[in-house]
Amino acid sequence: MSDKSQIPDKIISRLPQYYVQLKRLLEKDCQYVSSEKLAEQMELSSSLVRRDLSHFGSFGKKSYGYDIHCLHEKIASIMGFTREKNMIVLGAGYLGRALAHNDSYEERGYQVLALFDVDPAIIGLEFNNTTVLDVDLAPEFIEEHEVEVAALAVPFEAAQKMADMAVNSGVQAIWDFTETPLETPQDIIHIEQNMNDGLCKISCRLMDRSKTKTQ
Amino acid sequence: MSDKSQIPDKIISRLPQYYVQLKRLLEKDCQYVSSEKLAEQMELSSSLVRRDLSHFGSFGKKSYGYDIHCLHEKIASIMGFTREKNMIVLGAGYLGRALAHNDSYEERGYQVLALFDVDPAIIGLEFNNTTVLDVDLAPEFIEEHEVEVAALAVPFEAAQKMADMAVNSGVQAIWDFTETPLETPQDIIHIEQNMNDGLCKISCRLMDRSKTKTQ
Repeated sequence: MSDKSQIPDKIISRLPQYYVQLKRLLEKDCQYVSSEKLAEQMELSSSLVRRDLSHFGSFGKKSYGYDIHCLHEKIASIMGFTREKNMIVLGAGYLGRALAHNDSYEERGYQVLALFDVDPAIIGLEFNNTTVLDVDLAPEFIEEHEVEVAALAVPFEAAQKMADMAVNSGVQAIWDFTETPLETPQDIIHIEQNMNDGLCKISCRLMDRSKTKTQ
Repeated sequence: MSDKSQIPDKIISRLPQYYVQLKRLLEKDCQYVSSEKLAEQMELSSSLVRRDLSHFGSFGKKSYGYDIHCLHEKIASIMGFTREKNMIVLGAGYLGRALAHNDSYEERGYQVLALFDVDPAIIGLEFNNTTVLDVDLAPEFIEEHEVEVAALAVPFEAAQKMADMAVNSGVQAIWDFTETPLETPQDIIHIEQNMNDGLCKISCRLMDRSKTKTQ
């Protein structure tokens, strides 16, 4: 049985949040953190944090708190950040270019090898040292470079076609920004990155306020 | 007591997902949907879906399922999409431009009035009919147009300064793409839009697979 399969899904879903908070503490040169402090930063209860972290082994030191460095490394390992993954970005519009400039890949084990687009006017351009290639070359590129992940940043009308191309060429996972219902085979990891979650949360809270004011 | 305050936070956090799924069904001209079908699309259990939706009133029709149109409208209203909100985008780099081209604002009640940047080379340009203005004009603009929401798409070194400016000028909410720990007053709605969640999920699942293969 693997390390990870012993950890419930609910905890796994909170790991990225733990990872970011621990990284911020490391950047401030902190060595230890209490469950109360982590809980406060993450807007969780401290008892939940203690329960969550107890799944990863013993990182606590009485009266010091958790060893931030060890915990950060353990979570990075559980999340597979220590494993190298080749990625491409399909679509080199503004979002694709923003993705090329995202500086979070390296620490998470991702390497962005190329952008792809249909527009001859931008094929050949470079963004953050990543070249835009003709999308017709993508299938061969994916196979040759053993690309595991394709970020999908194309207009919705091209989304299904591009997803099919990526899957047929051998990618295992699609990081999908298109907000389009896509059909992908069962064995493909299809993650929809909904950029509008935040808009919904903000709207909800502003609504609460305006209700409170008018009550 | 308001409608919303009767609905638990956990359900509120699933509302954006329900909204998107219902919208997709509406676009396919569907009229009714079963809890089983919704549950399958959302990767939840059908009993959880039934419990969730029971909080919004009675939208079910025996042997037909839920009335999609009514449910969609109810959720939009709970999420405050029916209330108009003025927004600006701080930072007109690739991400800011991608945000200007996001077509999800109107149905959620947001109106993007302007982009702001420090770079004279892009001030005056238009993206999706939204003009880039000099960031020095932002405080007056926010006040004059009663801007409630600022999307923060600036480099991390400018993040705190821009957040302070927006808050001091009167915005109520910050939609934060900077992945920087920001200090904001308690009464400000500060939502971090973590674009790298998906990368973490993909990495986790790829890791699972590689473990399974080597076992």
